[in-house]
Amino acid sequence: MACRHSSTPFFRLASSGKPRPWPRKASHSGAHWVAVQFVPCSPPLCAPAGSAAAAAAAMAQADIALIGLAVMGQNLILNMNDHGFVVCAFNRTVSKVDDFLANEAKGTKVIGAHSLEEMVSKLKKPRRIVLLVKAGRAVDDFIEKLVPLLDTGDIIVDGGNSEYRDTTRRCQNLKAKGILFVGSGVSGGEDGARYGPSLMPGGNKAAWPHIKTIFQSIAAKVGTGEPCCDWVGDEGAGHFVKMVHNGIEYGDMQLICEAYHLMKDVLGMEHSEMAQAFEEWNKTELDSFLIEITANILKFQDSDGAHLLPKIRDSAGQKGTGKWTAISALEYGVPVTLIGEAVFARCLSSLKDERIQASKQLKGPQKTQFNGDKRSFLEDIRKALYASKIISYAQGFMLLRQAATEFGWTLNYGSIALMWRGGCIIRSVFLGKIKDAFDGNPELQNLLLDDFFKSAVESCQDSWRRAISTGVQVGIPMPCFTTALSFYDGYRHDMLPANLIQAQRDYFGAHTYELLASPGKFIHTNWTGHGGNVSSSSYNA
Amino acid sequence: MACRHSSTPFFRLASSGKPRPWPRKASHSGAHWVAVQFVPCSPPLCAPAGSAAAAAAAMAQADIALIGLAVMGQNLILNMNDHGFVVCAFNRTVSKVDDFLANEAKGTKVIGAHSLEEMVSKLKKPRRIVLLVKAGRAVDDFIEKLVPLLDTGDIIVDGGNSEYRDTTRRCQNLKAKGILFVGSGVSGGEDGARYGPSLMPGGNKAAWPHIKTIFQSIAAKVGTGEPCCDWVGDEGAGHFVKMVHNGIEYGDMQLICEAYHLMKDVLGMEHSEMAQAFEEWNKTELDSFLIEITANILKFQDSDGAHLLPKIRDSAGQKGTGKWTAISALEYGVPVTLIGEAVFARCLSSLKDERIQASKQLKGPQKTQFNGDKRSFLEDIRKALYASKIISYAQGFMLLRQAATEFGWTLNYGSIALMWRGGCIIRSVFLGKIKDAFDGNPELQNLLLDDFFKSAVESCQDSWRRAISTGVQVGIPMPCFTTALSFYDGYRHDMLPANLIQAQRDYFGAHTYELLASPGKFIHTNWTGHGGNVSSSSYNA
Repeated sequence: MACRHSSTPFFRLASSGKPRPWPRKASHSGAHWVAVQFVPCSPPLCAPAGSAAAAAAAMAQADIALIGLAVMGQNLILNMNDHGFVVCAFNRTVSKVDDFLANEAKGTKVIGAHSLEEMVSKLKKPRRIVLLVKAGRAVDDFIEKLVPLLDTGDIIVDGGNSEYRDTTRRCQNLKAKGILFVGSGVSGGEDGARYGPSLMPGGNKAAWPHIKTIFQSIAAKVGTGEPCCDWVGDEGAGHFVKMVHNGIEYGDMQLICEAYHLMKDVLGMEHSEMAQAFEEWNKTELDSFLIEITANILKFQDSDGAHLLPKIRDSAGQKGTGKWTAISALEYGVPVTLIGEAVFARCLSSLKDERIQASKQLKGPQKTQFNGDKRSFLEDIRKALYASKIISYAQGFMLLRQAATEFGWTLNYGSIALMWRGGCIIRSVFLGKIKDAFDGNPELQNLLLDDFFKSAVESCQDSWRRAISTGVQVGIPMPCFTTALSFYDGYRHDMLPANLIQAQRDYFGAHTYELLASPGKFIHTNWTGHGGNVSSSSYNA
Repeated sequence: MACRHSSTPFFRLASSGKPRPWPRKASHSGAHWVAVQFVPCSPPLCAPAGSAAAAAAAMAQADIALIGLAVMGQNLILNMNDHGFVVCAFNRTVSKVDDFLANEAKGTKVIGAHSLEEMVSKLKKPRRIVLLVKAGRAVDDFIEKLVPLLDTGDIIVDGGNSEYRDTTRRCQNLKAKGILFVGSGVSGGEDGARYGPSLMPGGNKAAWPHIKTIFQSIAAKVGTGEPCCDWVGDEGAGHFVKMVHNGIEYGDMQLICEAYHLMKDVLGMEHSEMAQAFEEWNKTELDSFLIEITANILKFQDSDGAHLLPKIRDSAGQKGTGKWTAISALEYGVPVTLIGEAVFARCLSSLKDERIQASKQLKGPQKTQFNGDKRSFLEDIRKALYASKIISYAQGFMLLRQAATEFGWTLNYGSIALMWRGGCIIRSVFLGKIKDAFDGNPELQNLLLDDFFKSAVESCQDSWRRAISTGVQVGIPMPCFTTALSFYDGYRHDMLPANLIQAQRDYFGAHTYELLASPGKFIHTNWTGHGGNVSSSSYNA
């Protein structure tokens, strides 16, 4: 049997099923700054040699299987098919397999299976199986059913939104059984899945050589064809990185909201003006998918010709990954304040009825009129957004660095920035700069200490302070703008007022403190003259 | 056998062991606003009637046992002894029992035991046993050893800093075995334990009538002798309330730090001036233990005559309960932003070496000089602190309310405010106002909607905005001042910019949204013209 690569057409672009041209500009899927390019797979995926093996391989025609035929799963399959891979599709509700083959996958090389046994029998070895099912119990259930059907060295990839600790547990359990487990973040929504997602695989590294070609082929490409997919690290590292990605996404979205709020209520801008501003901003350092779709959203008119946005209820939902990021930050003691505030801002937004009541009773400042130069203040807002965004990413990478320490993972921060550079929701030109920063100095302690970002914040800071100061005076909530500035001002202070916290803790609880002159030596002071015991309780603070 | 109450002296004040007069004013322990008063125990604690029972009771002389003779445990024992209760002391390292009886407890009615069996045999029924050991494994270990020695209806109280979920689990497990379990928050440090702590018991309510007299006798008293102890609620409610107390404590401490930072670096005040300011503030609405000790700390001079505070390393430690509060807030979706920022501020402070590096590279604003009226700005800072503190407590009570809903607990918010009014670290006049607010309207949705607090914030808001605006311009980090204001401004907005978040989520992930005009009905818009599926993935946002 010949290597499949020699006999299948290689470059296929959106040829299958539900043909949709890859959008050149903006839209749902890819932005203009994402160069679309397919690169050949290498190394080739070959069947095992030898006649018995060849006979088995004759039946085993599929390169990979995918379980879970919701839109994301279907689109990932079609994406793999476009890149010349033979995919075997399976779904718990088996009728969906036939529907898929008869509709979306019609005319493709996709094959189906009506049972897990059949699916496994159709796979080349080592078998590659991707799960795209609801995170949680369903993943464990499928793993349990699959394991007896698999051989040592076979690979299970969980492409769902699993919690990273679950991925670590599964990775360890399956390693003991000889199965290579991978937890991969998949971002980019349905269009990303279809035409090039950001993929963040981590887990048992022995699996990587066997899935690298497929994963990097189907991933989004940036620059000169660099795939937005690379090996992240051991255990749950892939899902951890995906989680932080989502947390950063929460932050980016909230920052845009705060800018929008200032434009709307301080500058009194109309929707079309705001749309234009975001379009302009998208030609600056802020160039990104989220800024781009914000402009489109602001322009969007309902069937009655009025703008749709102001009709939408201001009560934000969430699926949990932003919350998980903030919780991890607290657990590992990393001040990821901006994501924390972004998550809380959604919580506050969801208290809609309570806010309506409160709005009738709680007064704002008397002066809410803006008298300054509008154009200049608009630029202040843009710079406030940019500076705050830099802080948010600096905090996100601080969390990654701490997780790497906690779990003994080796993370490549430049490579993570590249994975987020295209395909996913936070994709932006900005992430290219982050990649440059970490490529230039892989030991970079903090993004804020990189020359590019240092001078970026510096050039923004007057505007940033003006925007916040004005918003504070006229009563616009800016939880993320302000927490970002507080972090910056805190981070650049060699001396913070936390000496007072230490003194208080020692005063009421004999918790001891260090002197600046002798760090590492913990001492207690008898503050009151009537005693207090160093070996005291740990009941407070 | 006669009821103990008829034969033991009732009012005993710090008569035992290590005699220390109860400090009248300020200091480590009680502040001037805490009226110290001992009230008689009722109902009386009597031995069971009947001759066999009486014979057993002759040996069972102790009202309560306490395990764990660290300073907190010793002081609670001495406190109970002062109030006429016979306490049996036990410790894992048994020699400590003898040491305690020969020293601190010399001349008291405290008795000791050298084994758990002996301890149990010395207790009246239902037996009352308080654990004051390290939270976690040690609590489970003692419970496991105690259960076989106890009878149905006996009571175990965990007075340590246990996680509330552990308390709920223990409560349920022990209920199945007929043992009544109580998890009680204990706050006030060693002096609180000795002379009147804040006690927050929750768990199996059947235990309450048997421990109420002892607990309320030894607790701090306020006003006309009201004890800072009442039944909190089922399961882990007591430890949950204690956790939120500690979270609020983190917030209070950070707020004071931000005020101190502004005084020191914007107004350029000397330590003695700042001490004087805090002393003045302690005569206003801010009257509280933490403001009082801050004044004392600012005044405190080292042996060389210089102020001690500026020599202390600004790297704050933490024991975890603040972090737990912030995590709970995220888990239950309550925007407790101020405690979150306070915890993160400690995390940032602990990155001392990194901050020193950053301080050499990151520039602040050019203008850091304050040109306004100093006295007036000092009052702005005070009002900023007061308004922010109101927000923090409003958020804390929002979390309690949500927990009550999550777990089906019935919490009395006025009573919780009273428990914190005295004895504990956050004790303050302010908490009396919170008690009044909830007493006046037990259904009060939010503290900010109470007339007293509404007008308090209103009268502070101009100052609050000026203080923040100035701090922002000159580069002082104020994570808690600013997040409090953002919360206030967000809470009082009937319309927040979260409609844009909902539009974005629907744009890239078909997450659907509601219209203001028809809440509860979730719809999807085809924003791009090229599709997007409502039944789409849940892979993002």
